[in-house]
Amino acid sequence: MGGDLAGRMAQASARVQARLLLAIGGAEGPLAEAMAWAVEGGKGLRAFLVLESARLHGLPEETALPVAAAIEALHAYSLVHDDLPCMDDDDLRRGRPTVHRRWDEATAVLAGDALQALAFELVLSADLSSRARVDLGLSLARAAGATGMVGGQAADLAAETAPHPLTLAEIERLQARKTGALLEWSAAAGARMAGGDVRPFLAYGRALGAAFQIADDLLDAEGDAAETGKATGKDAARGKATFVALLGLEAARRRAILLAEEAVAALDAFGPEADPLREAARFAASRRK
Amino acid sequence: MGGDLAGRMAQASARVQARLLLAIGGAEGPLAEAMAWAVEGGKGLRAFLVLESARLHGLPEETALPVAAAIEALHAYSLVHDDLPCMDDDDLRRGRPTVHRRWDEATAVLAGDALQALAFELVLSADLSSRARVDLGLSLARAAGATGMVGGQAADLAAETAPHPLTLAEIERLQARKTGALLEWSAAAGARMAGGDVRPFLAYGRALGAAFQIADDLLDAEGDAAETGKATGKDAARGKATFVALLGLEAARRRAILLAEEAVAALDAFGPEADPLREAARFAASRRK
Repeated sequence: MGGDLAGRMAQASARVQARLLLAIGGAEGPLAEAMAWAVEGGKGLRAFLVLESARLHGLPEETALPVAAAIEALHAYSLVHDDLPCMDDDDLRRGRPTVHRRWDEATAVLAGDALQALAFELVLSADLSSRARVDLGLSLARAAGATGMVGGQAADLAAETAPHPLTLAEIERLQARKTGALLEWSAAAGARMAGGDVRPFLAYGRALGAAFQIADDLLDAEGDAAETGKATGKDAARGKATFVALLGLEAARRRAILLAEEAVAALDAFGPEADPLREAARFAASRRK
Repeated sequence: MGGDLAGRMAQASARVQARLLLAIGGAEGPLAEAMAWAVEGGKGLRAFLVLESARLHGLPEETALPVAAAIEALHAYSLVHDDLPCMDDDDLRRGRPTVHRRWDEATAVLAGDALQALAFELVLSADLSSRARVDLGLSLARAAGATGMVGGQAADLAAETAPHPLTLAEIERLQARKTGALLEWSAAAGARMAGGDVRPFLAYGRALGAAFQIADDLLDAEGDAAETGKATGKDAARGKATFVALLGLEAARRRAILLAEEAVAALDAFGPEADPLREAARFAASRRK
């Protein structure tokens, strides 16, 4: 990604993490420590989409920060539970031990649970109209729940023991829920905060999400654990049906780039003030971690 | 409990469970089955408190049903995660295998996660003003999260490895969060839906919650697994500091009854239309399961 975007994303991420640590401050003991550990060190792509889509709608960053913090809390909870021994069984996340390795499984379950509740607390206490808060909270609940992210995770688990590998269309549908739903929500958050039209942002988020997932598969196939901060080569070792396994490296890479351009095109009605979102879509498709 | 109350609670619980199964209907596969399994068969005390406090405020049951369904979804999620091997490691719940025994641990983690999201979806899509929905959702997030229920669960875990057993005051504070927060929220839900004064209902819910927890300790000490539908005698086997261990059976029983009367007294401003809530407090203190 360009130097400008990298710098802006890192700075935004630092502000969002500070807001999150403040929100966690009311909790105590290992639970609070594990929650803080879980939200630290991410790229902050989802928060960046929230902040940039809010800025595009003329909202002050102070108003958007708790909403950006909410999506990072929700994303962090999903990673903590996904890393559990009964799920992906990962020891490493963002270059550090996962929560259940650093503490224990019970603390990881509870820290994830508390982070999910915190996400709703943050969205519903934002300095916005009640109507906007309900819109954000309800769409977040749907994006996160059984027909969204968690539904996608469950489908991913079921695929591991399915009698035949998933087709491309099935993988797309699964990933649209598993990782796409939260990215879509993040992209549309600014429009929801401002009571604007969410449709171009949902289209943008959908394409960005698909590009992001292909990039994830590419990183797992080609990436370096030291660079990505997590284990790589796991998909192939498990014989998992991924975009890379089905399309091959080159076609997968091309597809990710096309999807990024599809995301960019969804914002054609906007001027240069949408450039950070355009860059973010290209970053999502070609990221190195 | 009196025959009238028992019948009304069972009937209300059946209507709430039907509403919950409808809400789960959008999900698929083992995830949906596990969610349905988890919400079936409870006493429905929390839902009953929501419905009765709503009725007391003149709200139609149809309006209150999704809110009652929400608290049962949230309660069910907490039980599914609490039963996991890394937490209480229970095989039996409500007289049936726990979710991780019937399916597997990953499905239990995900079903719990999805039920928490569903609780917020239900509250935020209720047929109420945006302001009331925000009030219900935000207070639910706080009651459920790191400073409420999950905070209490984490404190309970920490107590197991603490160098000295908890004092009575520490147990009270822990239980007020672990089980009290959701019962308080349930009792105050009607006032929140109607924009009324929540204070008497919070006082009622707080005392009822404390009585409920002592009754829980009494059931564990004296109860029969076939009657309660879950394992008993676990607290003593673990040397856990409970109200019964600290006060003895007789004093614990007296304290539960006093707390129930404290809950009843909190509703002194209301007439006979609050009688079901008064009976529910006495039931919570002397229940047999």
